Amino acid sequence: MTDAMVGDLVAALGERGVLSEAGDLARYEQGWRYGHGRARCVARPSTTEGVAATLRICSDAGVRVVPQGANTGLVAASTPDQSGAMVVLSLERLNQTIDLDVEDRTVVVDGGVLLSTLNEALAEHGYWFPVDLGADPQIGGMVATNTGGTRLLKYGDVRHNLLGVEVVLADGRVVSQLNRLRKNNTGLDSKQLFVGTAGAFGVVTRAALAVAPKPAQTATALIGCRDGAAVLELLGAVEQGLADFLSAFEVMGAAAMDAVFRHQQAVRRPFDEAPAYGVLVELATTLPAGVVDLDEILVARLGAHMRAAKAGVSDVLLDASDDFWQLRHHVSESLRSDGEMVAFDVSVARSRLPALTERVRAYLCEHHPRVWLCDYGHWGDGGSHLNVLWSRGDVADVAGLKATLQEAVYTMVVREFDGSFSAEHGVGPHNQRFYDAFTDDAVKQLCRSVGSVCDPRGLLGNVQLG
Amino acid sequence: MTDAMVGDLVAALGERGVLSEAGDLARYEQGWRYGHGRARCVARPSTTEGVAATLRICSDAGVRVVPQGANTGLVAASTPDQSGAMVVLSLERLNQTIDLDVEDRTVVVDGGVLLSTLNEALAEHGYWFPVDLGADPQIGGMVATNTGGTRLLKYGDVRHNLLGVEVVLADGRVVSQLNRLRKNNTGLDSKQLFVGTAGAFGVVTRAALAVAPKPAQTATALIGCRDGAAVLELLGAVEQGLADFLSAFEVMGAAAMDAVFRHQQAVRRPFDEAPAYGVLVELATTLPAGVVDLDEILVARLGAHMRAAKAGVSDVLLDASDDFWQLRHHVSESLRSDGEMVAFDVSVARSRLPALTERVRAYLCEHHPRVWLCDYGHWGDGGSHLNVLWSRGDVADVAGLKATLQEAVYTMVVREFDGSFSAEHGVGPHNQRFYDAFTDDAVKQLCRSVGSVCDPRGLLGNVQLG
Repeated sequence: MTDAMVGDLVAALGERGVLSEAGDLARYEQGWRYGHGRARCVARPSTTEGVAATLRICSDAGVRVVPQGANTGLVAASTPDQSGAMVVLSLERLNQTIDLDVEDRTVVVDGGVLLSTLNEALAEHGYWFPVDLGADPQIGGMVATNTGGTRLLKYGDVRHNLLGVEVVLADGRVVSQLNRLRKNNTGLDSKQLFVGTAGAFGVVTRAALAVAPKPAQTATALIGCRDGAAVLELLGAVEQGLADFLSAFEVMGAAAMDAVFRHQQAVRRPFDEAPAYGVLVELATTLPAGVVDLDEILVARLGAHMRAAKAGVSDVLLDASDDFWQLRHHVSESLRSDGEMVAFDVSVARSRLPALTERVRAYLCEHHPRVWLCDYGHWGDGGSHLNVLWSRGDVADVAGLKATLQEAVYTMVVREFDGSFSAEHGVGPHNQRFYDAFTDDAVKQLCRSVGSVCDPRGLLGNVQLG
Repeated sequence: MTDAMVGDLVAALGERGVLSEAGDLARYEQGWRYGHGRARCVARPSTTEGVAATLRICSDAGVRVVPQGANTGLVAASTPDQSGAMVVLSLERLNQTIDLDVEDRTVVVDGGVLLSTLNEALAEHGYWFPVDLGADPQIGGMVATNTGGTRLLKYGDVRHNLLGVEVVLADGRVVSQLNRLRKNNTGLDSKQLFVGTAGAFGVVTRAALAVAPKPAQTATALIGCRDGAAVLELLGAVEQGLADFLSAFEVMGAAAMDAVFRHQQAVRRPFDEAPAYGVLVELATTLPAGVVDLDEILVARLGAHMRAAKAGVSDVLLDASDDFWQLRHHVSESLRSDGEMVAFDVSVARSRLPALTERVRAYLCEHHPRVWLCDYGHWGDGGSHLNVLWSRGDVADVAGLKATLQEAVYTMVVREFDGSFSAEHGVGPHNQRFYDAFTDDAVKQLCRSVGSVCDPRGLLGNVQLG
C-alpha cells in the first residue's frame, strides 16, 4: 500500500512534490523544540489543487496527515508521530501569492509564505503584519496556531487580523472564504474553526489579512519595579494615558535578567541594583517625531508615575539603542544555558499575575527547594513564562520532575486562577494530556462534531481535540 | 400542553418571571424595525439557572424559543414568528452583574445589562466598552449579533473585545468559559460559535469583555470629496499618518446629506456647494490636549493632503461642536422621512466601494429610473448603506420592487464584488432567504453539525443557519 500511495502522490505532485528518502525526510521529522517522529513521506504541493489532491489520496488510503509550515511551533503539532505511518504535508512550496490591496490595507497570501517574506513585500508600501514573533513561521501555520507575540497589546493576535481563509478539508474539499471583509455578520464565522486548531480541521492554504501602517517611531524604556504589584500599577499608569501608543509591556523577573547578564557578554546590566522586575515599555506611532515626540511623552508619563506615592518604581531608563529589547530577546536562550528547565506558557487575568507567580514560587520553595523560578512574559496580555530551572545534573529523574512540575503548575493556573495552560503556543502532542485534562467535555463534544464534517475519519493533524 | 408548560415556567421562575397576557406580550412581539410575530408567552428569568430551567422546560415540551435582548436588532432575529407557538426568552431581568476588574481592564457582565448601563459603570473608572452604536442593546444581544458600530476602525467589533462567555444550550446545559484571558490558545475557541449566530446555538447569559480607556479628547472634521476615489485617497492619507488615533471614517453621499438638511431644521448646511461626498473623520486619544493637540494634528494632516495634487478634496471643515456627528446621526431617520425605501447594510473590500456604488447607481438608472440612491456608511471598515428611495405613492407594487432591488443589489455585492449581504446587522428572518442563497454548503453543513450538539431538536432562535 505504501508504495502505491507514494506513487499516487508523485503522479499528482510531480517528482519535486514528494520526498521519500530517509535523508530528505529528517528535517521534516524534527520540531523546533519538541516533537520528533518518523514520516512515511513528505508531500510538498505548490498549489491549493495540489494540497487537495494530496489529501484526497491520503484520505482514500486511510493515511494520517500532519500539515507543516515552517515547523517553528513549540508544541510538536507540526511533526509526525513515531509510527512512521503519517504523511507530512509541507506547505513550503505553496508560497507564490502575496496579493496586496494598498487602498484596502489587506493582503491575500499563500499559506506557505514566510512572515519575513510577507513583511518585506509589505514594507515597500509602509505596511507590516504586526503579529511580531521571535521565529519566522509561515502564514498558514500562524493561523493554525493563532500566534500572538510581543505586540499583541496594540495589534491583537492572528485572529484579530484575519479576514478570510481558504482551507482544504481532510477529503480534499476546498472551502474558500477568502474575502477581504472587515465587517461580515452573516451567521457562523466558520473561519474561526481553523484558527488555533493546529490543522486538525483543515489545511490553511491561503489567508486574507488586514495589515497595519508601520510605525514611524518607537520609544522604549526599562523600568525597575520592586514587586508584581508595582508592575501592575505601572501597567495601569501607562495604559490609561498612553493606550493609543502602547505596543509592548514585557516583564522580566530578576532571575531571568541575571541569566542573560551571565550568559550574554554583549548585553550590559542596565540597573545598578537589580530590581525584582524589569519592565520593558514600548510606545509606537505612525506619526513622525516632528508631530509627536514619543520619547518625551514616555519620559513625562513615567516621571509623573515615579513622583506618585507608593509607585514602587526604582529606576526608569530610557532606551536609545534597542538594548532593552536585546535583553528581552535573550532571556529564553540564556535560561537554557543556565541549567535544565521546564518551560511554561500560561496566562491569567493580568491582575492575578503577581498572586499566581507568588503561589508558584511558594510551592517550589516548599516542595522542590533545589529548583528556582525564572519568570518573564507579556504581562500586558496576562501571559507569563513561569519557567522552572535547576542545575544540570542536580536532579536524577528529570522526566519525573518535569511531569510533577507541569502537573502542579498547570493545575494551579487553570483550577485556582482560571487561567490557560497554553497562552500562545497552542495545542499539540507536547501538551495533549493537559488539553485532555482541562478541556470542558462540551467543547470536546463540539470538536468531535466539527471534526465529523471536516475530517470524519480523523486523519488530519497530530493533535486530538475531540 | 400550553398551559402545563406555562405553569412549569411559572413554577420555575415565579409569577414575575412569566408573562402570558396578550397585553403584556405586545412589546416583545414587535421588533425595532422589522419582525412582528406572536409569542406563546414571555419567560423572564433573572439568573443563569432560570435561563437553564426555561430551556429545559421548553426543550422537554418540544417548544421553540427565541432569545430576546433589548430587541433593537434590525433583522427580526429577536422576535417570534407568526405561529404563536414560540416562547420569547427575555434577558431583561438578568442584569445584576457588572464585575469590573480595574487592573485587568476587563468586566464580567450579565447578558441582560444594557450597553448604556455598562458604560455608566465603567465611566467611573475612566473606561468604556467601545462598540459604539445608535441603539442601546443588551450585552448578550450584542454578542449574538456581533455588533460593530461607528468606532470599529479603532476598537474592533464585539468579537475583538470578547474574552469569555457563559451560554446555555437548548437543553439547559450551562457551558461556562467565562475567563478574562487575552491570550488562550487551547484549541477550538468555542465561544466564537455564539458570536453573530443570533442565539441559534445558545443563549448568552454572561460575557467577559476587555474594556478601553476613555478618550480624553477627540477632533472631528468634515471633508468634501468630489468622488469615491477621492474618499479612498483621503482614507489612505489619514490612516497612514494618524492610524493610532483614527476612530471614525464615515461617509455620506450628497443625496443622504441633502435629506438631512431638508428634514432636520436644526442641522446646518456645512458646505457652500454640496460635494459628491461628505466625509466625517474623527480622531480620539487618551492623551490630554496639553500633550497632543488633536485638532492641530488633524488640520495639519488634512492641509497637507489638500495641497497634494489631484486630492479631489473641495472643503475641509473642522468641527467645534459635534455638529457633524449630528449630520451623520440624522441620516437614517431623514431618509425615512424622505420617501419609501429599501435599506441595505453591505460591505466589500474598501477599495471596491466606489466601483460598487457606481455599479448600483448605473443599474438603478437603467432599470428603475424613478428611484434614487442615498448611500452612506462606514467606509473605513468597507461598510455602506446603499439605500434606495422613491417618492411615496410613486410605486404600485412596493413589496415587488423591494424584492427586485434586494435580489439585484445583494447579488452584485456578493457575486460581483465578493462582498457581504449583512455587514453588521447579522442574520434573521429579515434576510434569511439571502443567507440561504449566498451561504456556502460546507458552512451550512458545519452549522448543522454544531447545531446537532448545541440544539439537536432545532428549537433555539428564529433563524435557520443549517
